[in-house]
Parts: sequence; C-alpha cells; structure tokens
Amino acid sequence: MNKGRTEINQLGEFGLIDRLAADLGPFRQSGTRKGIGDDTAVVESQGHLQLITTDMLLEGVHFDLSYMPIMHLGYKSVSVNVSDIAAMNGTARQIVVALALSNRFSVEAVEALYKGIQQACEDYKIDLVGGDTTASRSGLVISITAIGDVETSKITYRNGAKDGDILCVTGDLGAAYMGLQVLEREKQVFLANPDMQPDIEKYKYLAQRQMKPIARTDIIHELSDLNLVPTSMIDISDGLASEILHLSKNSGLGFKIYEDKLPVDQMTYQTAVEFKLDPITCILNGGEDYELLFTIDQKDYESVKNHPDIHFIGYASAEVEGGVLITKGGNTVSLKAQGWNHFPGN
Amino acid sequence: MNKGRTEINQLGEFGLIDRLAADLGPFRQSGTRKGIGDDTAVVESQGHLQLITTDMLLEGVHFDLSYMPIMHLGYKSVSVNVSDIAAMNGTARQIVVALALSNRFSVEAVEALYKGIQQACEDYKIDLVGGDTTASRSGLVISITAIGDVETSKITYRNGAKDGDILCVTGDLGAAYMGLQVLEREKQVFLANPDMQPDIEKYKYLAQRQMKPIARTDIIHELSDLNLVPTSMIDISDGLASEILHLSKNSGLGFKIYEDKLPVDQMTYQTAVEFKLDPITCILNGGEDYELLFTIDQKDYESVKNHPDIHFIGYASAEVEGGVLITKGGNTVSLKAQGWNHFPGN
Repeated sequence: MNKGRTEINQLGEFGLIDRLAADLGPFRQSGTRKGIGDDTAVVESQGHLQLITTDMLLEGVHFDLSYMPIMHLGYKSVSVNVSDIAAMNGTARQIVVALALSNRFSVEAVEALYKGIQQACEDYKIDLVGGDTTASRSGLVISITAIGDVETSKITYRNGAKDGDILCVTGDLGAAYMGLQVLEREKQVFLANPDMQPDIEKYKYLAQRQMKPIARTDIIHELSDLNLVPTSMIDISDGLASEILHLSKNSGLGFKIYEDKLPVDQMTYQTAVEFKLDPITCILNGGEDYELLFTIDQKDYESVKNHPDIHFIGYASAEVEGGVLITKGGNTVSLKAQGWNHFPGN
Repeated sequence: MNKGRTEINQLGEFGLIDRLAADLGPFRQSGTRKGIGDDTAVVESQGHLQLITTDMLLEGVHFDLSYMPIMHLGYKSVSVNVSDIAAMNGTARQIVVALALSNRFSVEAVEALYKGIQQACEDYKIDLVGGDTTASRSGLVISITAIGDVETSKITYRNGAKDGDILCVTGDLGAAYMGLQVLEREKQVFLANPDMQPDIEKYKYLAQRQMKPIARTDIIHELSDLNLVPTSMIDISDGLASEILHLSKNSGLGFKIYEDKLPVDQMTYQTAVEFKLDPITCILNGGEDYELLFTIDQKDYESVKNHPDIHFIGYASAEVEGGVLITKGGNTVSLKAQGWNHFPGN
C-alpha cells in the first residue's frame, strides 16, 4: 500500500459515499430539497416534488450473461430504479438509459436488452426518453436514471420513523439470493459438463426473483388508496439487515424484529437448507429482494392488518441501537449489514 | 459472422439509436414531450419544461488517465451534460453521478474526481444530488445525468431551422481535437523515454480545450438578455460537420457554410500543420469542442452581429441537401459526418 493511499475497501461503499457527500457543501439551487442519502434525490419545481435516482450495472460485477437472459437484464435494470422511486412513496415517469457495449454484442442482443427495458416501461407505465450508447472495451455497462414525482404530503424519507412505529415488509425475503445460488450452481455444473441440462424448473420462483424482480409499485398504489403515508421507507436492495440499519441511522432510533415474523417462501427455505445455508442469514442479508421496508404509525395498523402481502416484523424503539433480532428461542442478536459489497478485497 | 447476427459497427452509433428508437412506440406519460433524438429529453410538468440528458464516459474509450488528470475528468464529465442542456437553450440545475471503479483507484483518486465534479457544479451553479458508486473489473466508468429547465417560449430543438436562417457557431473549432493529438504524442514520447519531460506548455490552450471543456452557458444567458431565441440549436460534440447534418436532418433543409468564415484559433491551425493534418478537417470533424451551433432568423442578425464570440458561418437553404462547404477557392464540397465512432471496427 502506498503512503497516503486509502483503499476503497477500507471504507466500503457506504463509507466512501459518506466521505464524498461530506464535502458537497450547501445546495446552490433553491429547488434542491434532498441530495445524497435517501433512495432518490428530491427536487422541488413549481411546488411539486420530483424524484431522481440512478443505478449502474456492470457485467461481471452485477450480472452474468451466461445465465441471465439479456432481456431480463433490461427489465431488471429498470425495476431497480423504479423501486427506488417507490421507496419515496413516489411514481416513476421517465427513464434515460446509458449503455456501453463491447463488440461481443450484436445489434440483435441490444434489441433484446431494449425489449426487456420496453417491457418494464410498459408494465410500470413509464417512458424511455433518452440515453447514450457507446463502446466499451470489456462487456456491458448499463446505467439508468429514473425521474418520478410524489405529492408533497406523501413523500416518505428514511428518517421519519418514530418510537413505537410498526416495521412492515412486503412480499417475501431471501428468494433472489437463493435464486442466485441456484443459477451459479447450474452454471458450474454446465461448465463441468456442457451436456448437462440446467435443472432450474424446480427453482423457477427463485430464479425469477433473481432475474426479473418487480418493483412494488402495487403497494404504493394501495397505500395511497388507503390514505396511509408510511413514516419512513426504503427498498430492500442490500438485504433486510442493511436497510433496517439505514432506517435506524436516519431516523435516530433502533428496531426490534422477530424471527418468527420474517416472511419467507417455502422454496427459499428448503433451498437454503439444501445448499447448507442458514435460511435466516439468507433472509437478513440476501439482498436484491426489491421489496419495500417501511414504518407506520400504530394508528394505521387497523387499515393494513389484513393485507395479504404486508408483514409486520417488528417495531421502532428508542431504547434499541441499530437493529436487533429476537430469535424463535428468545435470544437477542444484533443486526449487521453484511449486504452486497462489490468492492474486491472486502 | 454468425447468420442472423448484425454487428453494431454495420449500423454505427446513430444507426443503432435510430433502430432502437423506432421500436419505442407512443409515450405513456402525458408529460413526455420529446424522447430520443435531440440534445436532451423534454418533459412537461405543471406547465414547465424540464430537460434531461445523460452521458457515459469509459476509461480506455473516452479518456486516458495517463495524461488526463482525474480532477479534469470530473469537470469534463459535468461539462458535457451541461452543454447538452445549454443546446436546448436551457439551464442545468442538478446532476446525479453513477461511478464504477476498479481497485486500482484509491479513495484519494475518487476524491480528486469529485473535486473536479464539485468545481464544475460551482462554476455552473448546479447541485450534485445523488448517485451510485460501485465496483468495476476494468477501470473507471462515469455516467452523469443532468436535469435542467427552460421556459416554454425559449426551448430550442434541432428541428426549427428555416430557409434563409443564419448559421452561427460560438468560440473556435478543432482545438480540443488538436489537444488530443498533442497529448497522445507526448504520451508516446514518454512511453519511449520516461526521462523526457512532456512538452505541452506551448500547447496549453489546446490541452485545456481537450481536458477541461467549458459548456457555453454564458452564451445562453447573453441570448436571453438579448431576447433572442435561436430557431434551432445543437452542441458540438461529434464535430461541426456531423452536427450540421443533424440540424439538416431534423429541420428538413440543408446548410451552406463558408471555409473563410470558420473560426479557428491560430494555435490550432499551426499545430495541425505541424502534425501534417489538414486544418479544415480538424475544424469540421475534430469533435469535443462543446461549442454551440445554432440558427437565427435574419431579423435577429443586427442584435448579435458585433458579438465577439459568435461567428456567422453560413445559412440554411432549402435548395441544399445535407451540408456543403464553399472553399476559399470557390469549390463546393459535401459535408460528411466523420465524427467520433467509438465502436471498434468502424
């Protein structure tokens, strides 16, 4: 290591972002409401709140085209951005797509990628309005920026959780991570013996959750219909534990969650056992679920208590630091962010 | 070549974009005014026009850190986006930055990159409001999206030029391209003999134009002060000839330009001669000038005729197809887009 040289993996992604964000200084534009540090940026324009978010996916880091159909990759790269906008309680409206391609890719491959992007635009009712297409020396890079909006009275930041608020999560957790394990295993089997057919039919749900996640815009609509504004919200991209710690840090209080309340699909559980993985670790730290994690005031519990896809996993507590899991056996375990860290060496 | 496989370089960047854009179908959001095909996308929100543009720069394709200081790269990556917004006659307000880094980069290098981004934000009075930071397996990728706005009565597309309009260009042309030649030569000299000191002091203006281009937001303010709205506009990223052909295609008429009217700095001219390059080719096809190319109605000529940095290089003509150059010798030469094509094999 050189003198005066700090490796990125010494700080990690979040440490690096904190360090860079600390130098930014005050905003120059009167419309800028929120910069780095939530699911999206927030800009006020004519009394109206706009949301902006960006995500970059690189081949060999975030996806492997040897098992990821390129059309699904297009779909997923839109979903992850729409999910960020949903996590502000907002609605995505437009995206721009920047794409870098090596000459390994044919026009037909790019068209398949765009077909997936288009399908996502159709499903989410958004427009692809611009982009940049350029060459790459090493594989595919896709960077999408999504623009959306939200009513001022409905915007939901990471920092609004109050003592006693109920912590909710949508869908089920850990499936995308187990899907990745299945796909990686089948790839190794295939590399060892190309005549072997991949055996993923049985794991279809898991593979689907990994390859083609759906942003929970349905939940945003339903909450709106119920006139329920969560007190804080984040989407689950890095894993439940990591996201709980984000809500904790931003809201200035802790969370207690209960093992027996965590939603998991049977297939996820069984496959984790088959892979000799601890199911609870997959649920807490798996990542890429793109479900919504949010807090609600206790008074709002009645209106969602029977919702089939919203699960009440714990509550906010000023007496807890960070997050703790109460196991089925009654033990208390501190939550750690073991989420994705793509920086090598960490 | 595989059957049914079309290589990207058969279509080129613009051909590929045309093909992808053709499949997009109608807009789903009522606010979307303009998608792919101009300097930025245009979205209407509460009677207000928003501009969105994105650009991705990859190490080894768009920049070479062996002579490009990483701080300048940060500055440049902002400038190219602000320039696109200026080319719509708009003002940039915010940017989001997606960054991918290999472990070759230290935290200090990333901080230097951000220092350049910050300096540009300061100069352009914009806010860095968000981003994504991730790992890369091969060098640095930087993707910036800029958001801006423009009054409805002032927006300037590529398609508004009318027969007889005067074609104007700001600044001088070809300097950024010659700067690249100088930097590449010095790199080769250095590689051959590491004891040699780079000799770029003499070429400082050219190197500066290549490494730290300034978006012409000053011109946008001045045109606004003069109450002059160009009839069409584009920024010069791919070279004058290529941009003229864009205005031609979009506006449905041709352009005549005059060799003796093309603005060139003495240093650019002399260096082209020194490098045994045709200065006129550098001016027409050099690229990366990030000057503004626009048309004005003849009635507006009086108000800008004495502007020291706006040059009148020709006019729009329904009788011309594409663009033609009238040489000093009185010959007529068709303009060809020989601009940047980063796709290998083309």
